[in-house]
Amino acid sequence: MEQLSSKYLNKAVGELSKLPGIGKKTALRLALHLLRQEESDVEALGNGLIEMRNRIQFCSRCHNMSDGDICSICSNPRRNNGQICVVEDINDVIAIEKTGEFFGLFHVLGGVISPMDGVGPDDLKITTLLKRISAEEIEEVILALPTTVEGDTTNFFLYKKLADLKVKITTIARGVGIGDELEYIDEVTLGRSIANRLPYQSAIKY
Amino acid sequence: MEQLSSKYLNKAVGELSKLPGIGKKTALRLALHLLRQEESDVEALGNGLIEMRNRIQFCSRCHNMSDGDICSICSNPRRNNGQICVVEDINDVIAIEKTGEFFGLFHVLGGVISPMDGVGPDDLKITTLLKRISAEEIEEVILALPTTVEGDTTNFFLYKKLADLKVKITTIARGVGIGDELEYIDEVTLGRSIANRLPYQSAIKY
Repeated sequence: MEQLSSKYLNKAVGELSKLPGIGKKTALRLALHLLRQEESDVEALGNGLIEMRNRIQFCSRCHNMSDGDICSICSNPRRNNGQICVVEDINDVIAIEKTGEFFGLFHVLGGVISPMDGVGPDDLKITTLLKRISAEEIEEVILALPTTVEGDTTNFFLYKKLADLKVKITTIARGVGIGDELEYIDEVTLGRSIANRLPYQSAIKY
Repeated sequence: MEQLSSKYLNKAVGELSKLPGIGKKTALRLALHLLRQEESDVEALGNGLIEMRNRIQFCSRCHNMSDGDICSICSNPRRNNGQICVVEDINDVIAIEKTGEFFGLFHVLGGVISPMDGVGPDDLKITTLLKRISAEEIEEVILALPTTVEGDTTNFFLYKKLADLKVKITTIARGVGIGDELEYIDEVTLGRSIANRLPYQSAIKY
């Protein structure tokens, strides 16, 4: 990219191409697009990103992102304070919130146990989870971690830790997706969905 | 995207998703990526974009982008001042510069004649092109506009305007791309490449 006749463009393209999934060509396309926009629009974008990074905090209770000390989910009086859904990352909170099917609270671990990547239980927000379960009147902990070796390991670790506390432990249902065709499902998912089959009535909740 | 628990994130996602080819999902992925980066990195990106938009000017001679009044190509004493390559957009300057095969100057029209989009000759930098050809000692004008109806119309318009001035008018070669297989080439390109065939020797310039 030495051929660009502007050092400002060069710099902007360099910064944009650091974003995941954005190569030099896309970065150049985006930069040239921005050059054609109003100054105020580009300022809104640039300052919006900076403000987001500098202002967003993490909820001191559930570690979800938040504009204040306590996030909007934890501070919502209409949420069920007896349920905690344990997730790996903020993305998962967003995904579950989108479904509109969960009305309890969250706990964001900030990762899963992965010795290969040097992530142990102490690197995750597990201590605060145990504290919350003791201090708050939690009835159910829903484990919604990924179905990977690391996710399963973390599930098992949490299960062991939580076994002494009198709390119901559940995991989200794994099975054939709505609308998926059986012939294209991997064997493990299909096998589990048969093993964990439900009575006909209770499975229909539309 | 009403479910995001941070108005700062909401705003950043909204701004990112205005970029071409970036939808709500990608915008969210990029925003969450930026949240995990250092504050200084996000500031470098945000300010880099703003600085680029506010600082880049357009060369008063060729309308290429420039950090000063005259762009680095126009002010380069080693460029051939007798050749002007006429292109539609800044992207085309970048593409031609990358080839390393052109040593003359450019003239960026800023579009092509397109009555459907309400773009007429007066909306393009045609007057300054004609002035340059009269004032500077231009020997050759190379038309490198797109091979579309609009590009051809603009080519013809320029050809008519330039016919009176004593200047050589050429267009870039159209033909089968290097490495392309003949069976996959569209008929028009293949037909033209046969009609405009070259003596064997002169075609080889590697």
